[in-house]
Amino acid sequence: MNKKKIINDPVYGFINIPSELVFDLISHPYFQRLRYIKQLGMTHLVYPGALHTRFHHALGAMHLMSLAIEVLRGKGQEVTKVEEEAATIAILLHDIGHGPFSHALEHTLVNGIHHEDLSMLIMEKLNVEFEGRLTSAIAVFKGDCQKKFLHQLISSQLDLDRMDYLNRDSFFTGVTEGVISFDRIIKMFNVVDDNLVVEEKGIYSIENFLISRRLMYWQVYLHKTVIAGEQLLVKILERARELALKGVKLFATPALQHFLSNRINVIDFFEQELHLQQFMELDDQDIFASIKVWQDHPDAILARLCKMLTTRNLYKIEITNEAPDESRIALLKESVGVVLNISKEEVRYFVFEDVIRNRAYNAGSSNIYILLKNNTLIDIAKASDLSNLESLDKTVKKYILCYPRII
Amino acid sequence: MNKKKIINDPVYGFINIPSELVFDLISHPYFQRLRYIKQLGMTHLVYPGALHTRFHHALGAMHLMSLAIEVLRGKGQEVTKVEEEAATIAILLHDIGHGPFSHALEHTLVNGIHHEDLSMLIMEKLNVEFEGRLTSAIAVFKGDCQKKFLHQLISSQLDLDRMDYLNRDSFFTGVTEGVISFDRIIKMFNVVDDNLVVEEKGIYSIENFLISRRLMYWQVYLHKTVIAGEQLLVKILERARELALKGVKLFATPALQHFLSNRINVIDFFEQELHLQQFMELDDQDIFASIKVWQDHPDAILARLCKMLTTRNLYKIEITNEAPDESRIALLKESVGVVLNISKEEVRYFVFEDVIRNRAYNAGSSNIYILLKNNTLIDIAKASDLSNLESLDKTVKKYILCYPRII
Amino acid sequence: MNKKKIINDPVYGFINIPSELVFDLISHPYFQRLRYIKQLGMTHLVYPGALHTRFHHALGAMHLMSLAIEVLRGKGQEVTKVEEEAATIAILLHDIGHGPFSHALEHTLVNGIHHEDLSMLIMEKLNVEFEGRLTSAIAVFKGDCQKKFLHQLISSQLDLDRMDYLNRDSFFTGVTEGVISFDRIIKMFNVVDDNLVVEEKGIYSIENFLISRRLMYWQVYLHKTVIAGEQLLVKILERARELALKGVKLFATPALQHFLSNRINVIDFFEQELHLQQFMELDDQDIFASIKVWQDHPDAILARLCKMLTTRNLYKIEITNEAPDESRIALLKESVGVVLNISKEEVRYFVFEDVIRNRAYNAGSSNIYILLKNNTLIDIAKASDLSNLESLDKTVKKYILCYPRII
Amino acid sequence: MNKKKIINDPVYGFINIPSELVFDLISHPYFQRLRYIKQLGMTHLVYPGALHTRFHHALGAMHLMSLAIEVLRGKGQEVTKVEEEAATIAILLHDIGHGPFSHALEHTLVNGIHHEDLSMLIMEKLNVEFEGRLTSAIAVFKGDCQKKFLHQLISSQLDLDRMDYLNRDSFFTGVTEGVISFDRIIKMFNVVDDNLVVEEKGIYSIENFLISRRLMYWQVYLHKTVIAGEQLLVKILERARELALKGVKLFATPALQHFLSNRINVIDFFEQELHLQQFMELDDQDIFASIKVWQDHPDAILARLCKMLTTRNLYKIEITNEAPDESRIALLKESVGVVLNISKEEVRYFVFEDVIRNRAYNAGSSNIYILLKNNTLIDIAKASDLSNLESLDKTVKKYILCYPRII
Repeated sequence: MNKKKIINDPVYGFINIPSELVFDLISHPYFQRLRYIKQLGMTHLVYPGALHTRFHHALGAMHLMSLAIEVLRGKGQEVTKVEEEAATIAILLHDIGHGPFSHALEHTLVNGIHHEDLSMLIMEKLNVEFEGRLTSAIAVFKGDCQKKFLHQLISSQLDLDRMDYLNRDSFFTGVTEGVISFDRIIKMFNVVDDNLVVEEKGIYSIENFLISRRLMYWQVYLHKTVIAGEQLLVKILERARELALKGVKLFATPALQHFLSNRINVIDFFEQELHLQQFMELDDQDIFASIKVWQDHPDAILARLCKMLTTRNLYKIEITNEAPDESRIALLKESVGVVLNISKEEVRYFVFEDVIRNRAYNAGSSNIYILLKNNTLIDIAKASDLSNLESLDKTVKKYILCYPRII
Repeated sequence: MNKKKIINDPVYGFINIPSELVFDLISHPYFQRLRYIKQLGMTHLVYPGALHTRFHHALGAMHLMSLAIEVLRGKGQEVTKVEEEAATIAILLHDIGHGPFSHALEHTLVNGIHHEDLSMLIMEKLNVEFEGRLTSAIAVFKGDCQKKFLHQLISSQLDLDRMDYLNRDSFFTGVTEGVISFDRIIKMFNVVDDNLVVEEKGIYSIENFLISRRLMYWQVYLHKTVIAGEQLLVKILERARELALKGVKLFATPALQHFLSNRINVIDFFEQELHLQQFMELDDQDIFASIKVWQDHPDAILARLCKMLTTRNLYKIEITNEAPDESRIALLKESVGVVLNISKEEVRYFVFEDVIRNRAYNAGSSNIYILLKNNTLIDIAKASDLSNLESLDKTVKKYILCYPRII
Repeated sequence: MNKKKIINDPVYGFINIPSELVFDLISHPYFQRLRYIKQLGMTHLVYPGALHTRFHHALGAMHLMSLAIEVLRGKGQEVTKVEEEAATIAILLHDIGHGPFSHALEHTLVNGIHHEDLSMLIMEKLNVEFEGRLTSAIAVFKGDCQKKFLHQLISSQLDLDRMDYLNRDSFFTGVTEGVISFDRIIKMFNVVDDNLVVEEKGIYSIENFLISRRLMYWQVYLHKTVIAGEQLLVKILERARELALKGVKLFATPALQHFLSNRINVIDFFEQELHLQQFMELDDQDIFASIKVWQDHPDAILARLCKMLTTRNLYKIEITNEAPDESRIALLKESVGVVLNISKEEVRYFVFEDVIRNRAYNAGSSNIYILLKNNTLIDIAKASDLSNLESLDKTVKKYILCYPRII
Repeated sequence: MNKKKIINDPVYGFINIPSELVFDLISHPYFQRLRYIKQLGMTHLVYPGALHTRFHHALGAMHLMSLAIEVLRGKGQEVTKVEEEAATIAILLHDIGHGPFSHALEHTLVNGIHHEDLSMLIMEKLNVEFEGRLTSAIAVFKGDCQKKFLHQLISSQLDLDRMDYLNRDSFFTGVTEGVISFDRIIKMFNVVDDNLVVEEKGIYSIENFLISRRLMYWQVYLHKTVIAGEQLLVKILERARELALKGVKLFATPALQHFLSNRINVIDFFEQELHLQQFMELDDQDIFASIKVWQDHPDAILARLCKMLTTRNLYKIEITNEAPDESRIALLKESVGVVLNISKEEVRYFVFEDVIRNRAYNAGSSNIYILLKNNTLIDIAKASDLSNLESLDKTVKKYILCYPRII
């Protein structure tokens, strides 16, 4: 079979699959499974185009890696064929550990298990299966490689992961303000003392990149309705698991059943292969197909929560800069308890608070350096004419309060 | 609740929801369910961006309706507020009867039941629920209305349905050649003797529209791998149903179970509400979540077929202008039988033929008329300088032959 | 003749000419002349696509006006047909007073005459010609109208002029970071107490608009090479005029000759029709066709400057935050004097300083107000989560130093 | 000076200047002059965005060459660095011989002198100036090189010249139907027996390319108003020259004066360097700046024609499949003679016929070959499913009749 394929991508036009090994990794069930895990979870409830998957994102990030390496080579930076393949595979697999609706799941069914750890675990497993041919890729992924800048292309404040997801999320949501000039930024990449830097002429593009990312946070990732949808999913899974652990019968696909009925921690994952096996069977469809069935479950709370989701009758949500008033919350809880005729304890499924945070630029961690024409390096936050970027370093914290629309 | 919403659409920018009734229809579970039915079924196996849904398409077609009516009014064609809402609802609901993977399902689980009939049935049901407020919309949908051109906007060779799906499919697949100038075509719309026509200046845009549609057929809708995926799905559902009817136990979501275990014809649908109820619970996720489980089913044929799908190890497919050689087929069947160790009868799941057809312009049915400057009408096929469009009227028939890659 | 035309615009798709009067204004030689005045002057020396004209920009801004009025009407704001036409014409003609390379000309040939004054003068003249039918438009343009928000759509920190030029300049330069979500911003327009405001949901789009505008300033409008080109043009025109006023013979088109050989101030313009007549004959082509001829002029300075332009051998330019060192300038002047064998006085054509300034948001003048959900108004600079916008209010001042590449 | 520049192009994003020699050629006055020669002449009278120049087109075609060579190398086709630079320069300079408004000028001032001949002449001259470093490029341009396919990339029915101008003209006019999938076509390029061919999977893209090109002809290049504008320009130049040769005094830039007052044939061009020198000074601005002055020329015919152009009061034009009726023409001529009070002989400036032709695919000359999967070659016209492409081979001939709008 010809494994030098070209894939149509509405974002970049065409994506090349550069080698047979990469082709075989893409064909692996672990990677094909990402076809059924949406990049933005419940966001399509607000932006109906946002159905793109982690599969597509991983391919896109891989494409950007090939552009970046071409640019760096053009500037005299040596990158061997082996290093290129390692970096390519590392970025291709950087999100392989994601499960469906990661944020929701990581707070419920696979509590405390970060997708980064699973990515690592899976890459190790694949390395065995592919007879050690992923060893260099894993080194790049971990940052244990000779060329640190290759790792920075995968994980830093200016990595190709972010660059692709901003492009892709902006494209599929239709939020044009998120558009960044990734091609210009990549053309301005350079390497100084083994560190990825951006040449001076790219400074406005970097500013725009940081501002766009911030805008995408508030307009898309932390959009009210998106949060309302995700919170609802969390509550559904919490309730379902509560029932399952009590022994109540629940319809579920086998993979979902596995995680509903067992308490699995990160050590279990590493010690018993079965858990990873089941996790690799799980995707968005298991969750949602089961939720549809639960609409008619005898447990009134579970049924109500599921119906809220399928009919898109989500929580009403308030986002504020100050913590919401305690007495107001108490009142809300009481009313909801009465209206729904549920216990005080059960009200927590319907009325609750949470906190969201965002920081557009983190001046303390893997800063973005600008290479001035006089060959000195300067932090982007200081290179800028204005104090904009210093202010982006502040963490914005907001409070959310959710309650049902019935009251 | 404010029901005058604006929806972000990467294809058109923004879509307005024009009225409360429309908002309520969109919120109805029957319509929300279209969020989980992909417009292009298995096409994302080839074009990973093609995950857009019938939900999004219906909204897009509705948007085009508002543009078209604005243009026609601007040319002095009266369209009352009531007629506008009727046309808007009619196009919004024109595909409401679609189930998941329509083509595959219509050949297996709901054999002989066309989605058009179900659309009609569902609209009638909604009309009851909405106390008769859909009566005019149904009239427009059926063509029983006073203004025939409104019906033609919904269903003709130049309808807004086609216009939106070409735009949308082209956008999400990244097949830029499918781009049509829908805004130019709509600006050239006019009405003569109650018929929708296109002004002479739009003639090249119409030609381009027909050619683009043909290109999309061969490059996307009838793409080899897309057909291979759809055929595989048909065979999986055939096998699953064969087993289910024999009484073999199969995991399935309740809605899917209903259609696997019962033989339901179109009359049953109209007579017993239960079938429609179950159908309204069914979406892409039920099918695919179940298929994933069937990979480990004791029935070797079902398990193999399902594994072929989840690992994207699809049939090898040959598309030819002449029927494939009978003796070659016989040989293929024999080899596959031996290799898979299955009976002659069972080989039909792995080696089989079919026929595909496409006609870009059908000169005999609701032709496209061009309004010349001298106010006469002429068929597009005759208005064109070249014989292109006459040739588009020919039905292209091709033969397909499928067999597994194992041999 | 059918005057209800549609114009293709690559930026917005199509632009409608809404009325006969507008059609006749567009056909007027004063307006047609804008076809030959580039929106961005010498910018095409850096961004070769930036050839779009003031003609195209005026049509684009007019298109945005029709969108804005539609949105405001949809929110219950009354705008009569007469007011709509007035606003349409006012924005169409807002830049009619621009001459070729406005910034350069306003510092040389028509020194001290602002294009805004000429726009007003021309509109008055057209009003006579069109028998008073522009009276309301002039009132809107001046802000003397009943509905102040109509004037704000034409001239304020959020006017449609800026919105179109950002869109258009971004499109034709290919600087994608300049992309703004004009359609979203316009959809968020509202009117409170006769003031144009933006609804709360549009806040991130406004931030993005201000940031994009700033980016366009530094990346395009104040790009080094663009400034170098404009400065060169200023020096050429200064020298040519110096010679002309001395009586030296110079090739020039008659209109250019008029401005080279006469000292005309703003009062002359208003008192003697001849000057405006000649000005209305002048466009980019007069300037550039004459400069090409001057390459062979006997005056060595003029000839050298012109050759620098036609061969794109522009000044070397340094942009700094601090004023450049005086002694360095003295040294540069001396060397250039020696190399070119010119007098100390003449060196000012080749070595000189200047200052550029930019302020992205001016918190003191026609501020942008956000309409919160609780119906209160708040300044955008205060509504924002971060201090970004406060910092945008600072005027950034930079020093430029120009000298020829020969040394 | 750093000569490895990147140029922003709204069509392709960024264009790299690959070498110092290429940089120096682009900087040469002969090439810089193309900045002031519009690719589409008078087309901007209809499509106001169509102001892009031959300068930009040449850079774009050069960019496509780099993509094409990269693809061919990736398929194992050797292209040496030297050959690459030769092909790059050949395509960069392929249109260097164009003057302003080529079609109009080639029928008037430089009658019988084809721009291809001038391109050759100029390349030879540049080769002398660059000390023989263009020798290989000239060989590729002429087709005298070892690798014929390199020449075919520059000049054939599928050359990169056409590909860029379709992309670019479609982009700047806003005629989206002209969009072609150039990147897909280029990715499908291959070389068989030293001939450029397209792989089978690219067949629909090629069809679309041919159809789009045809559409662009009728919708843009041969648009009524475009033709009317060009015809008017021809008549203006004819009249001006008639006057100049009679000794009547006419304002003109020196370069234009040269061609108005001398009868120069192709041999003169090759024998006397002066003519080329003058031609290299001529651009769109000379023509138009002079025409503006001629509006007030004492010759009533010249003045009227020029005013028609500057006020966009173009000829009325009829395009028909049959030759227009002789008696009608006679009548038109008579009326115009009377109305304008001009002689029978002079009427030819206002009433006249012409013929236009277009053939989308020329089956007899450098055909486009498709490389089938079985490694045989087949002409595109035969590879296609439908007879479309055969019909595209027919030359479409149309008659045009022009007369002023005054009658």
